[in-house]
Amino acid sequence: MLGKLILPDYESLIENKEWQALRDAFSELDAPDLAEILEDLPADKMAILFRLMPRDQASAAFEYLPIDQQTQLVQTLAGEQLAAILNEMAPDDRTRLFEELPAEVTKRILSTLSPSELRIARQLLGYPENSAGRFMTPEYMAIRPTMTAAEALGYIRVHGKDRETLNVVYVTDEKGRLLEDLKLASLVLADPGAKVSELSERELVSIPATMDREDVVKLFEKYDRVALPVTDTRGVLLGIITGDDVLDIATQEATEDIQKLGGMEALDAPYLDIGLLQMIKKRGVWLAVLFVGEMFTATAMSHYEHEIARAVVLALFVPLIISSGGNSGSQATSLIIRSLALGELNLRDWWRVAVKEILSGIALGSLLGCIGLTRILLWPTRNTVYGPHFLVIAITVAISLVGVVTFGTVAGSMLPFLLRRLGLDPATASAPAVATLVDVTGLVIYFSVASVVLKGILL
Amino acid sequence: MLGKLILPDYESLIENKEWQALRDAFSELDAPDLAEILEDLPADKMAILFRLMPRDQASAAFEYLPIDQQTQLVQTLAGEQLAAILNEMAPDDRTRLFEELPAEVTKRILSTLSPSELRIARQLLGYPENSAGRFMTPEYMAIRPTMTAAEALGYIRVHGKDRETLNVVYVTDEKGRLLEDLKLASLVLADPGAKVSELSERELVSIPATMDREDVVKLFEKYDRVALPVTDTRGVLLGIITGDDVLDIATQEATEDIQKLGGMEALDAPYLDIGLLQMIKKRGVWLAVLFVGEMFTATAMSHYEHEIARAVVLALFVPLIISSGGNSGSQATSLIIRSLALGELNLRDWWRVAVKEILSGIALGSLLGCIGLTRILLWPTRNTVYGPHFLVIAITVAISLVGVVTFGTVAGSMLPFLLRRLGLDPATASAPAVATLVDVTGLVIYFSVASVVLKGILL
Repeated sequence: MLGKLILPDYESLIENKEWQALRDAFSELDAPDLAEILEDLPADKMAILFRLMPRDQASAAFEYLPIDQQTQLVQTLAGEQLAAILNEMAPDDRTRLFEELPAEVTKRILSTLSPSELRIARQLLGYPENSAGRFMTPEYMAIRPTMTAAEALGYIRVHGKDRETLNVVYVTDEKGRLLEDLKLASLVLADPGAKVSELSERELVSIPATMDREDVVKLFEKYDRVALPVTDTRGVLLGIITGDDVLDIATQEATEDIQKLGGMEALDAPYLDIGLLQMIKKRGVWLAVLFVGEMFTATAMSHYEHEIARAVVLALFVPLIISSGGNSGSQATSLIIRSLALGELNLRDWWRVAVKEILSGIALGSLLGCIGLTRILLWPTRNTVYGPHFLVIAITVAISLVGVVTFGTVAGSMLPFLLRRLGLDPATASAPAVATLVDVTGLVIYFSVASVVLKGILL
Repeated sequence: MLGKLILPDYESLIENKEWQALRDAFSELDAPDLAEILEDLPADKMAILFRLMPRDQASAAFEYLPIDQQTQLVQTLAGEQLAAILNEMAPDDRTRLFEELPAEVTKRILSTLSPSELRIARQLLGYPENSAGRFMTPEYMAIRPTMTAAEALGYIRVHGKDRETLNVVYVTDEKGRLLEDLKLASLVLADPGAKVSELSERELVSIPATMDREDVVKLFEKYDRVALPVTDTRGVLLGIITGDDVLDIATQEATEDIQKLGGMEALDAPYLDIGLLQMIKKRGVWLAVLFVGEMFTATAMSHYEHEIARAVVLALFVPLIISSGGNSGSQATSLIIRSLALGELNLRDWWRVAVKEILSGIALGSLLGCIGLTRILLWPTRNTVYGPHFLVIAITVAISLVGVVTFGTVAGSMLPFLLRRLGLDPATASAPAVATLVDVTGLVIYFSVASVVLKGILL
């Protein structure tokens, strides 16, 4: 917010090369605000401003930049400044940056890290993508169970300076196995002579390094902790994941699901930052796939060409009927995809959902059927528009709506389950994909009903 | 996870009235696991189990239950147990519970609170719905700037027991105005004789009590803090908001947006917990509104009845063309709604988006047009299905696709901006709503193109 208000000032200062004024302006700003200012500048100006900043400030601001702008900036920075920044980044943030970079750039950059930093980066990079291991930081504070509270506080005072967080400290045995975690507050509140091993007051919750990030979010939601430890299969403490990273993960997961639900590949970058061509590619692929699927509607319709020729009035209701199926399918699929993502629903719940959706579908279809029936029967010009047989037409439309909406609801709700069962991402069952599926089937339902109801009358 | 595995055991223990065995089983469990077990039980068994628990455990587990099950349980509990639980709940959680209850029940329950608890509940309830005031807890730890680090730690040791969090402590003046916030870790790491006023190492970020919860999430994302203070217009500290609550808010916001985007009212409860009738209502209202909108397709089609009668082949491509418009609109609207929600886009960006979307729309429409053209021209039975004029038909379809997809893309991206400009929720521009809008226009575009291209040939 701050950045937005004073932005024009910065751009003109850069254009007029008023370096000293810029340096003065920086000195009053904190890292998140600096990052926000940088973020809104065009790439070339961002790089200039960045080189102008004192090294400490530059490193701090860099950590607050979105990942795609970090990537951009990294490729323009010279060796020395780059090394300084990377060495000061938190290991988990650095790992995420490396993931986004082209392999060539990653290699060049890894060579700028100090040996100990390099070891950490390599270690974090070894875990599967989107696993807990990728998001942990090894900068935690470990203490021993045999210490007293006072000894532990003294130890933290000496060794705690560079840790990502001290809000929670970790009690480990001599083999590095995690015994329990302890709030710093508990140490402060405790009797100074009390043993650390006696202070634990809550269940130990730990995350396996291979756990998927979606499940990590669920654990944080369940336990309301500010940080959780990551362990290997032997229970050895590898690192910790902090709440602020989990908030970022949850937001990113939701964004990806919304974009997939809208019928495209996840963009992985803010709207204004992504190039036009890349965006067209991410949307075009799915649009083309859906288009090819939707072509079956033309094939289905061509089977009924004869019926349409005899009763053109049938064609009038095609968009109404198929879109109602698509809409009810879109509702069902968004509902189920989100419930699966939040863990409110599991695979084994599919039949409970199926029962509920069949009942909902029949009820919703009947509702729309009644509205449709009323609309046709009460339309002032029904005789001229729909012809003398408007009553049977209305009945055909109403019956078809019940069938199509029920099918849409059931298909939209079951497709995400099916995808998860097959080990795929349920969010691939986008609203447009369900609509396409329902469109083809909806046409078949509609013309089948018509051929029965209108037989001998119009057909 | 734990709860799911041992659940059958619990149900049978209750059925067999093995109270002692149940009590023994509880004693080994922590509050979040107990809550998970309770959550999965039918309502009557949940109430039985809950009454059986020791009071402390019951209160702790209650706080971890989802809001709708808290509501259910509260209405079955007797006065004394209820009072105990409510008095031990964190004030912000209690406020959220009150919001969900029918007014009658709220009144009855407020009477069970102790006077000081009642004061807190009333205070929190006074802020507008979804504002920061509703989510804050007044259980923060305040210290004075004149204390030394050692004095502050001593003060916290005496007064810090019941605070929601001690990870951050708040420095206030004698009038209660917030001066700065300080990590507990900074106090621990500091030289014991250092003054509190000298320890601040970061920018003070505070939240106005009336700030919308969506903006609160953005502040947490920007500053990566575990807690942020809430102040009134004079800068007086009212309470704090903690990171775990913000994670819940972010998740809930995303769920609501996904459900709205799917074309329904937000459900406000997990899928399996919501009653069939209530769900039908939440979906039926929007489905009916969309249906009425979609009726214009029948009206639009009836204007072209004459053209369809002369060239039935035109009707075959109606679903293909309108659904392509709907799909491209759905992509654009999901993209823009999420970007607006995340603050990546602002109202004033509308024209940059419009330019990008017009270009995307033309490109994507041309892509689909080419696929459509190829499909018709290469179809083996093109002469029998589409008639002798398949080439002009193919051209009509291709041109219409460019127009319809471009319109869908632009309409889908601009509608969320328009809604926000009018002060409405952009997420109301659901994918189905955009599809409906595009369907009607798409028909007009298609038949207009047809009447120009096919004039003198088929029409």
